[in-house]
This record gives sequence, C-alpha cells and structure tokens, in this order.
Amino acid sequence: MSEAPTRGFTRAEYARRTELAQGLMAAQGLSGLLLMTEAEVRYFSGFHTLFWQSPTRPWFLFVPAQGKPIAIIPEIGAALMRQTWIEDIRTWSAPQPKDDGQSLLMDLLSPLANANAGIGVMKGHETTLRMPLADYEQLIAALPGLRIADATGIVRSLRMVKSPAEIGKLAHICGIGSKAFEAVPRFAHEGMPLEEVFRAFRREALLHGADDVPYLVGGAGQGGYQDVISPPSRRALCKGDVLMLDTGSTWDGYFCDFDRNFAIGHADDLSRRAYDVLFRAAEAGMAAARPGTTCRELFQAMQSVIAELDDQGGDVGRLGHGLGMQLTEWPSHAAFDDTVLEENMVLTLEPSLSYGDGHIMVHEENIVVGAKGVELLSTRAAPELPVI
Amino acid sequence: MSEAPTRGFTRAEYARRTELAQGLMAAQGLSGLLLMTEAEVRYFSGFHTLFWQSPTRPWFLFVPAQGKPIAIIPEIGAALMRQTWIEDIRTWSAPQPKDDGQSLLMDLLSPLANANAGIGVMKGHETTLRMPLADYEQLIAALPGLRIADATGIVRSLRMVKSPAEIGKLAHICGIGSKAFEAVPRFAHEGMPLEEVFRAFRREALLHGADDVPYLVGGAGQGGYQDVISPPSRRALCKGDVLMLDTGSTWDGYFCDFDRNFAIGHADDLSRRAYDVLFRAAEAGMAAARPGTTCRELFQAMQSVIAELDDQGGDVGRLGHGLGMQLTEWPSHAAFDDTVLEENMVLTLEPSLSYGDGHIMVHEENIVVGAKGVELLSTRAAPELPVI
Repeated sequence: MSEAPTRGFTRAEYARRTELAQGLMAAQGLSGLLLMTEAEVRYFSGFHTLFWQSPTRPWFLFVPAQGKPIAIIPEIGAALMRQTWIEDIRTWSAPQPKDDGQSLLMDLLSPLANANAGIGVMKGHETTLRMPLADYEQLIAALPGLRIADATGIVRSLRMVKSPAEIGKLAHICGIGSKAFEAVPRFAHEGMPLEEVFRAFRREALLHGADDVPYLVGGAGQGGYQDVISPPSRRALCKGDVLMLDTGSTWDGYFCDFDRNFAIGHADDLSRRAYDVLFRAAEAGMAAARPGTTCRELFQAMQSVIAELDDQGGDVGRLGHGLGMQLTEWPSHAAFDDTVLEENMVLTLEPSLSYGDGHIMVHEENIVVGAKGVELLSTRAAPELPVI
Repeated sequence: MSEAPTRGFTRAEYARRTELAQGLMAAQGLSGLLLMTEAEVRYFSGFHTLFWQSPTRPWFLFVPAQGKPIAIIPEIGAALMRQTWIEDIRTWSAPQPKDDGQSLLMDLLSPLANANAGIGVMKGHETTLRMPLADYEQLIAALPGLRIADATGIVRSLRMVKSPAEIGKLAHICGIGSKAFEAVPRFAHEGMPLEEVFRAFRREALLHGADDVPYLVGGAGQGGYQDVISPPSRRALCKGDVLMLDTGSTWDGYFCDFDRNFAIGHADDLSRRAYDVLFRAAEAGMAAARPGTTCRELFQAMQSVIAELDDQGGDVGRLGHGLGMQLTEWPSHAAFDDTVLEENMVLTLEPSLSYGDGHIMVHEENIVVGAKGVELLSTRAAPELPVI
C-alpha cells in the first residue's frame, strides 16, 4: 500500500477552523454554536471514535465567540477528549436519563440567555438533532431569553472547502478504494453469491489499508440491476449479469464514495450503451467542475449527456454531492442547488440513468476542484463496461 | 462457518410487531406513530439498507391505529421498500430541501390534526430526531391541532424483548464474533501495530461470516489500557501490554457486542487480578439475570464483586445494556434503571473497573434471558487473562 498521510490534524488547523467559524458567527451576531453531531464535534475538536454508534449518550461541543471550543461530554470520553486540543472538558457520568448533560448545558447557556444572546444550532438540510427531542425542548423552554438560530450555513460553508491535509486523507482512501475495485475481476466470478462478493470486497479494501468499509451497497441482475441501495442477496452471479458495487471506505475518518460496474461473462448492447453514456456524462462533469461553476450548471452538464438515453431525471434525485468526513456532504449536484464551486471542494460526480426493463445504472468518480480544473482522486473507470 | 439462519423475517412477524404497537397506542389514545430512525423504520417494515449513512434524505414510516404501516420515503428507496410487506409507499424526488417529505407528511397528518388526534414521536432517552429540526418545527407549527406524545416507551417495550428469529440472528453473529476472538492469538503478536491488529480482526470476522464489523474499538498499554473507545494507533504491541478489542459485528442487521482481553508475552499480577474480578462479576451477573430481576439488581450483583478492587463506580456509567438491531439498546444495567427483566431479552453484561496507574479494564458477554436462567450467546471468555 502507498505511504499513508499523518493521522489527525495540527492544532493550528483546528484553531483555523474555529476562528473562521467565529468570524461567521460574529457576522450573524451569534455568541456560540452548540454542536452535537459526530462530524461537527470532530471537525472542531479532533474527537474521533466509533463510539457514536451507541445511541445511548449525547455529546456536545460549544464553540464560543472567542477561544477554544468547550466539550460537554460523558465521562467515558474524557480520556480521549484530553488527547485533543480542547482544554475545557466538562463531563458527567452518562447515561443518566434524568440529566444527560442538561445541567451542564444550563450552566453554560444561562449567562447567554440572561444577556438575550443568540446561539446557533444545526437545524437545516442534511442535519439531525442528536439528543433526545424532549431534552432539547426542555432545555430551550428553560432558557427563554436565548435566541436559537440555524447554524447550518456557517458549518456548511466551512466544511465544504477542504484543507490540504483533508485532501491528502481523501486522496489516500480513494487510492485504496481504487485498488479494491481493481481486484474485483480477480476474486468475483460466475457462480459466486453476491453476499460473498461483498465480503471479499471488504476484505480486499482492508488489505489495501482501509480502516473500515462502513458503506457497501450494490446489485447484480440479468442485463442490469434494479436498485442501488440494497444489501446483497445469496443469489449467485450469472453470465449476462451487470454487477455494481458502491463503496464508502474510510481512512482516518474520511470517506471515498464511488462505484464500479462489471459485466459477468458478456455485456449486452444496451448495458454497454448505458455505460458509455454515463462515462461521457462524468467526462462532461469533470470539464464543467471549476471554481465559479454552480452545482446546478454541473448537474446540467451531466444531465445533457444522460438525456441521450434517459430524459426522465431518474430516481436518485441528484448527480453527485460533496465528500469528506461523511459519505455524503453538501452540496448537491441538482437543479435546486446554486452553490458556487470553489477551489478545494471535494465532490462526487454520480451520473445515473434508467434504461431497458426497469434497470438503473450508476457511475461515480471522486474529484477535487482545482484552480484550473479537476483532479481525479479515484482511478478513472474503464471507458467501456469491463467484462469479468 | 456454521449454517446461517434465514435472512429477514416473516410477514407474520412484522404484522405481530405492528399489532402489538397498535395495542399500546390504543391504550395511550394515539392515532399513529411517526418513526424516522433506522432501527424503528426497519423494525416495523423490514426496510434494510446501509444508505442511512448518507445524512441527506429523511425517511418516514407511519404506524396508523389500524392496518399496515405507511412509508413516506425518497424515491431512491422505493424499489427496496416494495420488497417488504409495506403496500402504501409514498415517495418524493429527494433531496428537495424546500420540501423533503413535508407535503406528504402534511397530507397524512392534516386529517388527524383536524380531529385533534395524538401521535407518538420518539423523544426520549437514547433517541434522536432524524430529520432537520427546522423541518420538524415547521411541520408541528402547521398542525396546531395535533398532539405529540413521546412514543419511546411503546417502541422500547417491544424492541427490548426479542423474537425467536431475532435471537437466532443474534446467536449467529455472536458465534462469528467468538470465532474471530479465538483467532486473535494466531494473528496478533509482539511488534504488530495496533492498527494492523484491528485490520486483521475485521478481516477475520468477515472470513467467519460477518456481514460487517461497523464497531471495533480497543486499546493496548503496559500493564493495562487507559481508554476504551479509541481508534487504534500505529504503536506496536509490546511485551507486558494488555490488549483489549471490543467488537460490534453484524449479520443481517443484528449486532454482537463483546470484548476480549489478552496479555502480550506475560501478564502482570494486578492485571490478572482485575481480570479475575471482572470474570467473577460477569458470573454474578449471569446468576442474577432472570425474569423478574431489575436492571438495578443486576447492576448491584456485578458491582458488589467489582467493589473488591474498585468501589468508585468507574467512568463507563453502566455495566451492560440491551443488544439487537443497534450496538447498544435499552435497558441499562445501572442504578437508575428499574426495568424488570423478561424472558427473551438479549443483553450484554459489561463489568468494568479502574485499577493501578489510571488503567481501566472491561469484560463483556452477550446473553439471552431464559425462563430458568441465562443462555450465553458469546463463547465464555477464558477464566484467566490469556497470554499471547
């Protein structure tokens, strides 16, 4: 495997993220951000653990108007949080359903409420409230002076543009994913149950240095597959199948997200044509993805090629998205999204179409937007549908 | 690998879950449950996909007072949802930030609001709101007649007690996890970076038939480890280390969750003693875990043994929890939890203690509560700290 980048980030990088957020907060008159989702807590603190998979305990990070963020977290996370740049770490013995951080939040927020200050909470598109809703409602009701604004725009604008260190991690995991896909013709074969194809792919990605393969979906069927988010069945690969695998593998908490298509034994003409259209749609996307282009324009550049075979728009809802600490991030390559591309955004290009007898085909690459054009992070898919 | 159970569940099982929920809803005067989290949507529909890892799109399942649940989901999920027992599937082209299911929810809920009916939403302990908070607030504000109750108790009481088919899946993945742990002495060795130990463990669990290893944490250090939720470092295992691995591996959407400790080269006396105390604490837990026992009593049974070495209560906050579709589920073995154990609850017993120079040790088994006592789902840990 290729030399891995350094894990984690410099303290200067966390300081820079925090200062940029504080600048945007000041412009909106906000005295703090109350964050509680994995990516946001990690982005500003460096706190990185799979323990978020347990839904039991809430975790909070408060970004004040000045200074370092403050962690309000279960005691079980204190040792790990102390390894980050965060200094003010306030803990309680969680779980404690009657007071899971509520008293500590009250202590922190009461002075702000008394001053009729405003804080930001993530309330917008692609966000969730990762604390019990009843606790949130109780907290807000107990702080009538506190103004709650939607902080989605602030966090979104920061996270969409990646630092060189983030791009290094993303390039590393995209390289690992590319090697795992290169191995598919060596381990997948007619007669292999799709479930075993998935298991072999995960093992292959780990072998090439992935920390984990949290996302792997796909499908296989005669002349094409019919959905793109399923877990695998025990059905064996047959001659004439089109097989698709789509992975979100991770390294140091950063995702790749791309897919590859393969024909088993031979490829039918319609599937070859669909593949060619999607390959050229991705080319059109790569040509269009430059600083100043909007996501809508990027969507249209790909859609105009896809329309050669499918002008209905399809079921996927968009033709790619941002990529980073999460499998999918803002923005969306869709008609509704007028986000202007900037240098160092990392994106997926994900043209898809419906064809034939209820079939769907997807094609995906991972790119970084450069000053003069895109750089591919995934190894470009073969120009013709590969046959295994 | 051992013969795997059948994937999925019978339609009769989904019907039974729904009817039991409807009985509890009727007792609370609720006309529906609005569910939006992965485990709840899957529990009542059978909709199973890793696509939830994308935060972009909300998904809704509405359990009405009578009849089958109604799915309100992004179009990308329609093909997969049509494979379940759900018939009423309402979709929109998501993402659509200005109307991500809101109109469809309004159509469904307006008649209930007009009738001043009540619905349940998951608002309690261990729950999150998996839709944008701003969308939720807008929806509720537009339906002033609708009463919103907390449905946590209803869903919790159903999900805590497992069906025979659920127990079969849990036994299968616990068996796979046990085989992966048995292999640790064959692949882990002095000089191996912890990161490679983790990668090898994941590959081993897949080899034995795990679908995935979404959760793997642990630690290693001289005479003991210091935190139990960290990702692995590049530090190589050294003679005198205590190594702990804790896995949540999955099969067909069900988790095992247990850990194992190993000494590298030799085990120091204090670590051996800590291990012995935790082994006996788990024995005490197994003896106590019967129908009619409360989680508090189960906690006390383990804590009374742990107190031989550590009477401070530790940082973990509880000594085990429920297990099933999530890595951790209700209840908690803790002083605050007076849940009465019932036959067919699947639980972890997870005694832990602090010892020596800031070290922590954890020990974990997975059990099912039977009429006459517990059945172990994990292969019991060795009675003495194993030395590799």
